[in-house]
Amino acid sequence: MLKNFKLTIEYDGGAYHGWQRQATEPTIQEEIEKALLTITGAKVALTGSGRTDAGVHACGQVANFLCETNLSHDVFQRGLNSLLPRDIVITACTQVLDSFNARYDAKSKTYHYKILNRRLPAAIGRHYFWHITPKLDLSAMRRAYRHIIGTHDFKAFEGAGSPRAHTTRRVIHAELVKDNDGYLIFEIEGDGFLRFMVRNIVGTLVDVGLAKSTAQDFKRILLSKDRNLAGATAPPQGLFLMQVNY
Amino acid sequence: MLKNFKLTIEYDGGAYHGWQRQATEPTIQEEIEKALLTITGAKVALTGSGRTDAGVHACGQVANFLCETNLSHDVFQRGLNSLLPRDIVITACTQVLDSFNARYDAKSKTYHYKILNRRLPAAIGRHYFWHITPKLDLSAMRRAYRHIIGTHDFKAFEGAGSPRAHTTRRVIHAELVKDNDGYLIFEIEGDGFLRFMVRNIVGTLVDVGLAKSTAQDFKRILLSKDRNLAGATAPPQGLFLMQVNY
Repeated sequence: MLKNFKLTIEYDGGAYHGWQRQATEPTIQEEIEKALLTITGAKVALTGSGRTDAGVHACGQVANFLCETNLSHDVFQRGLNSLLPRDIVITACTQVLDSFNARYDAKSKTYHYKILNRRLPAAIGRHYFWHITPKLDLSAMRRAYRHIIGTHDFKAFEGAGSPRAHTTRRVIHAELVKDNDGYLIFEIEGDGFLRFMVRNIVGTLVDVGLAKSTAQDFKRILLSKDRNLAGATAPPQGLFLMQVNY
Repeated sequence: MLKNFKLTIEYDGGAYHGWQRQATEPTIQEEIEKALLTITGAKVALTGSGRTDAGVHACGQVANFLCETNLSHDVFQRGLNSLLPRDIVITACTQVLDSFNARYDAKSKTYHYKILNRRLPAAIGRHYFWHITPKLDLSAMRRAYRHIIGTHDFKAFEGAGSPRAHTTRRVIHAELVKDNDGYLIFEIEGDGFLRFMVRNIVGTLVDVGLAKSTAQDFKRILLSKDRNLAGATAPPQGLFLMQVNY
């Protein structure tokens, strides 16, 4: 019987060259497909909601796969979790309509970018944030990021060497908050993201926070569509794909 | 000028064979002493409050060192943090009386042991807790650990192969709480700890939580002074030396 399963996946991206299968380097997609091969005995192609880059984490990546099987969603979840390395966990597995496609049906995605902003670094959990020593001006950063809310051409924040034909995306929500443990969390929800877009936005926002540029500069960079004007790409280990909305 | 410096140290013990210097394996003490050699140009001996075992973390280990120097505590802290690997951070450095000894002056120590108790494992932060799938009976565990509070011979909870002449210690406080993120934290403060004592207590408490034994059994194990009766040693990655009290 042909079934379509939707997986929700948490992973620590530290050991992987991103989500998407590659010829030589380990990826999260490849690990899950290998485990599915063991369970089903057949080659199963996994469709992710989209890529995450090398070193980026996920709390709620979503993927789906179609296969001929009598196994239930429960058996798949337990089987995958027993086969997968400890840095990948299937947090949910449900059977869905055959028409469901994790990539094309995604309405929006929510990312978190985590920053430790204090003089001292931290040894515990250091794989999960970007440590920035000088005090960031949060008000200036807030004045800057409101310019990205709405529909814009985000070409200025696209990763070099990975151009898309269409670079217009809609940012639904953006917010900079402090969590319970004192970390800064930049939350951004959009209907789609260009490669490195979140990390380039964060890198450029941090320039504003450090008074290397102003909120007005940030707006000008966005409008310029010129990648060379934007700040450096923020390091991958602070980025988490939190949720894919359907 | 001879000065005595007190260091407060946070470390991720995952990559180390514990605190104490060894002939061949990397240890935290060795890393800090190497950095002190670079700063001072002389061999400096570090006195830790006590050992932590391979894989155990610390948020507040304390150590001291005496040296002839004109450098200030600030310079030492910044110098050490710039030289040390990212999994060791000096969170405080102060100059103290020459008579201060981090080991002999320690009045008590506080440890936390962190448990993730739910069906699903977690990929993010998995180096910082013990994942236990079956639901633990917290009331039974609480009935058990109150027997260790006070002064007792803890021989039953001493690590095999590392006997001490005196195995009587005083447990000042013990508590099992849930933190904001849903983890169970077993907090224990004592005037001293035998090798593996916290992890053996936790392993034996978890047996009670899993109904493999009762709170009365736990009491009997303590009174027996027989290591063979106690539960397995809980894994190191859940244990944190939180604070040394002087």
